[in-house]
Amino acid sequence: MLFDDTITAIATAQGSGAIAVIRLSGEDAIKIADSVFYSKNKKLVEQEAYTIHYGYIKDNEEIIDQVLVSIFRAPKSYTGENNVEISCHASVYIQQKILNLLIKKGARIAKPGEFTQRAFLNGKLELSQAEAVADLISAESKAEHKIAMQQMRGGFASDLQELRSQLLNFISLIELELDFSEEDVEFVDRIQLKILINSIKHKTKELIKSFEFGNVIKNGVPVAIVGEPNVGKSTLLNVLLNEDKAIVSEIAGTTRDAVEDTISLNGILFRFIDTAGIRKTDDAIENLGIEKTMQKIENATIILYMIDANDTNYCKKISDMSENIKGKELIVVLNKIDKIKGAIPSQTAECSNFLNVKISAKEKENISSLTNKLFEAVSLSEINKSGTIITNTRHLELLQKAFEATERVDSGLISGISSDFIAQDIREILNHIGMITGQYTDNEVLGNIFKNFCIGK
Amino acid sequence: MLFDDTITAIATAQGSGAIAVIRLSGEDAIKIADSVFYSKNKKLVEQEAYTIHYGYIKDNEEIIDQVLVSIFRAPKSYTGENNVEISCHASVYIQQKILNLLIKKGARIAKPGEFTQRAFLNGKLELSQAEAVADLISAESKAEHKIAMQQMRGGFASDLQELRSQLLNFISLIELELDFSEEDVEFVDRIQLKILINSIKHKTKELIKSFEFGNVIKNGVPVAIVGEPNVGKSTLLNVLLNEDKAIVSEIAGTTRDAVEDTISLNGILFRFIDTAGIRKTDDAIENLGIEKTMQKIENATIILYMIDANDTNYCKKISDMSENIKGKELIVVLNKIDKIKGAIPSQTAECSNFLNVKISAKEKENISSLTNKLFEAVSLSEINKSGTIITNTRHLELLQKAFEATERVDSGLISGISSDFIAQDIREILNHIGMITGQYTDNEVLGNIFKNFCIGK
Repeated sequence: MLFDDTITAIATAQGSGAIAVIRLSGEDAIKIADSVFYSKNKKLVEQEAYTIHYGYIKDNEEIIDQVLVSIFRAPKSYTGENNVEISCHASVYIQQKILNLLIKKGARIAKPGEFTQRAFLNGKLELSQAEAVADLISAESKAEHKIAMQQMRGGFASDLQELRSQLLNFISLIELELDFSEEDVEFVDRIQLKILINSIKHKTKELIKSFEFGNVIKNGVPVAIVGEPNVGKSTLLNVLLNEDKAIVSEIAGTTRDAVEDTISLNGILFRFIDTAGIRKTDDAIENLGIEKTMQKIENATIILYMIDANDTNYCKKISDMSENIKGKELIVVLNKIDKIKGAIPSQTAECSNFLNVKISAKEKENISSLTNKLFEAVSLSEINKSGTIITNTRHLELLQKAFEATERVDSGLISGISSDFIAQDIREILNHIGMITGQYTDNEVLGNIFKNFCIGK
Repeated sequence: MLFDDTITAIATAQGSGAIAVIRLSGEDAIKIADSVFYSKNKKLVEQEAYTIHYGYIKDNEEIIDQVLVSIFRAPKSYTGENNVEISCHASVYIQQKILNLLIKKGARIAKPGEFTQRAFLNGKLELSQAEAVADLISAESKAEHKIAMQQMRGGFASDLQELRSQLLNFISLIELELDFSEEDVEFVDRIQLKILINSIKHKTKELIKSFEFGNVIKNGVPVAIVGEPNVGKSTLLNVLLNEDKAIVSEIAGTTRDAVEDTISLNGILFRFIDTAGIRKTDDAIENLGIEKTMQKIENATIILYMIDANDTNYCKKISDMSENIKGKELIVVLNKIDKIKGAIPSQTAECSNFLNVKISAKEKENISSLTNKLFEAVSLSEINKSGTIITNTRHLELLQKAFEATERVDSGLISGISSDFIAQDIREILNHIGMITGQYTDNEVLGNIFKNFCIGK
């Protein structure tokens, strides 16, 4: 074992719940748990791995709680060490008391992410997999969950490992060349190397490109709701929020408060940006209004432009808006169709291209068409088709550096640069890729990665 | 089994955590879990009780999470039914997804407290023990925890059961008398019965009396901090709060916000009532001030009267105060001793009885003497000496009714009332006691008890 101390932490969330779990990891985990556990003639240290034991946690004669204790033995555990999980009643007093008891008996409080850090250092996970654990826990939408799960299961890591091992093969041959440099032999098939470098370039480029999409998935697709006052923006937002709430209603008090304006629809997280209504009085002011709103929605990917379907001038407005938001997805929402008598007033042909959805936010009519439009504008297909999506800025930076190095190798091979320069750049690629999966790390990098984890993971 | 459906719920608190636990209880619990669980050639239904299994939860081909599944088999489980606990990553998305999957496979969402209700109905717990589970979970102080733990372990229930079985013995003999009423025989030793009734009277009286103390322990001992403005009330409160915070600091974001002014000191919860400072200008206004403050502190058990130790008139003030709060514990706190040059100004002998603690809140001097005084004023000894403390108003009401019935039996035995009246009153005692432990219940009573539980317990 790499560590000789045993760490402990409360692994479940604080708050109103029935049970809480306190975990221990380290060589003495089972021994320490045993020293506070009482059951009829039963010692935890004598129990087999993957078994559960009912008993009491006692502080000398004082009974702290009736608990269930789960035993895991190294190396077949999350961290690769001996692990114990104590399932107790979710009272703050009890959790604190048990934690303090375990500390008194020789454990120490785990730092954030320390269990996962140990799992990585004990070779149970690649570094990028360990990072995915944190993403998985904070996943709030289907898409986010899917990306994190894929990364945690090692898809990303094994892709990179594959490229890395091929590169390692070449570098050893190149270094052999350098040893024999006086004799001017070439052990490395330059064409083969060029093919490999191109495939690495292609792969890293693809991963770098995926970051933009991954980031949107992680933080929510920014959608700006734009429109004149009283056109029904708030009503629509509430309707969308309610739809979302209905989905998650079985969990009380989830993350709704913290992410007030994000909504998960069909598995994609959308972040709605409320903009002040655009007041139209004359053209000059209208343009000013649009300009101000444009500042706010600069970062939006999708513009949801709401118009009163009874507005006789909506065609002109849409065409004005579409000119102002070039490069963004525009969804025009004709609201208040419930108030229309007969057909929606026909407009000139020029704007009919933009007429996307006709709804009544108030009567909750046709909302699903709108959510489908939103969904289409992002589309999960990109996740499904692409093997891997990067969501981590650390990975992005390393991939960018690796990409730059592959470009240097590439042009070096073309210009026939000497082998030692090529070797140096290949070493750099190896380093950067190795830092993603964790072959190369230092304590500072690890510290930065795991400090953002929650305690108990 | 009493129930043919399988219930499920998230048992851990919502919020930021590493792992979450989803539990299942019912005949099909293991079968349902098995239908979404995937591991190498392993079926949960074939696994032994008290074992843990690593694998995946899948929704068809979509992997939802890597999980650990714990298996419990009827009747050796919390509810007495087949139980499964799925330990997953604490992502809201994952928890919700797994819950929905289990529902799709035939489980239904548990109502609040339904697991414990099943435990009761399956004979795993007495009703009063089941009620103690909720108290245990919400316990925030050592004293509260101790009372709940004692009740959950059945001390209370077995006391009452003992009395009840003795009474049952007598009632059957009395009813035999009634059958032979024409022959005027007495199967029941009236003196023995009187002794038993008196012991029940004594016991119920004791339990009823314990409620007041139990209630104080549960809700916090109300302490009113009284004193003139700028005498240091807020400073003291902050110092006390900090001491408390230091104790619980290892758990982030616990219940501090919700119970802003309660502080657990030496295992006792104190509820501090901030009162407006008493302004002294002349006697009339002073009395008015004290009157207003008295309204606020009507429910306080302890009055913490703060005075500036440099106040040359403090003796008079203390004696005035003590007259206004007869029947309450008075702790006089002489603050700002750091500002005194030399000895504290001596006062007349008449008030020296009240001089309890001399502190400096600002310099945190002698605070432990004050907390010891507070602690003494309540004293855990009462918990330690008394076997059982009632904290539940339902129990209180039933005990009061039982007590009244014992009084009727008692006076009936003295006045030589006929056996059928005595039998009726004894039946009433049996009923009331039986409703505490759960021998006699109806669905409405059960519904009221368990609806206040959290979901998942």
